[in-house]
Amino acid sequence: MTNDTGSSLIRSDEVKNLIIYGVEGQQIGQIEHLMIDPVSGHVSYAVVSFHGQTTDDLFPLPWSLLKYDSNLNGYVTATPLKDLSNAPRYPSGRGWNWRDRAAIRSIDTHYGIRIIHGG
Amino acid sequence: MTNDTGSSLIRSDEVKNLIIYGVEGQQIGQIEHLMIDPVSGHVSYAVVSFHGQTTDDLFPLPWSLLKYDSNLNGYVTATPLKDLSNAPRYPSGRGWNWRDRAAIRSIDTHYGIRIIHGG
Repeated sequence: MTNDTGSSLIRSDEVKNLIIYGVEGQQIGQIEHLMIDPVSGHVSYAVVSFHGQTTDDLFPLPWSLLKYDSNLNGYVTATPLKDLSNAPRYPSGRGWNWRDRAAIRSIDTHYGIRIIHGG
Repeated sequence: MTNDTGSSLIRSDEVKNLIIYGVEGQQIGQIEHLMIDPVSGHVSYAVVSFHGQTTDDLFPLPWSLLKYDSNLNGYVTATPLKDLSNAPRYPSGRGWNWRDRAAIRSIDTHYGIRIIHGG
């Protein structure tokens, strides 16, 4: 693999269940799937299930909130947990409308992310 | 989705079987899975099965060889078919060693790709 960190590439069909850690090192959730821009080949969002939720809701997170830790083979995030209560989410059985730009903007707005347009 | 083309994002668990087209519009293969840099979130390679092969070999292709066509919801490639006979490949049951940098370089070299290091 030819990135700076020497981390191995991951298969698109093996990203499910990669663990999300909080800044204290505690496991707080896991990746369900990634949303990939088909043109640029860049991951735009990770769809995450968080532990300790009373529902099975899934949370789309901007990719930039996740930092890969090669020792953990998982992702660390500092941002979202404190304001999960009003974060964009959807029931796992239903799906998110990824063609609805307003819905997508609501994710970026919630997390204070300014997405750079690219293609 | 906030890319320039307005193409919808694709789920990491739904990239399998996206069709690869040749420049004449003919179907020449399909994506089996993508290889994603876990740090940058960029797709580095598509692992592809090509029609008309006598074996079930899979071919890792540099992502830059594939151009997304939103009308086709698939990828067009101009490059690889003519020299598939000596292209890097592996039996679908076996897997490729993505930790072996020399093996990865052999892909880039075969297709004449200069990978920009990023992370």
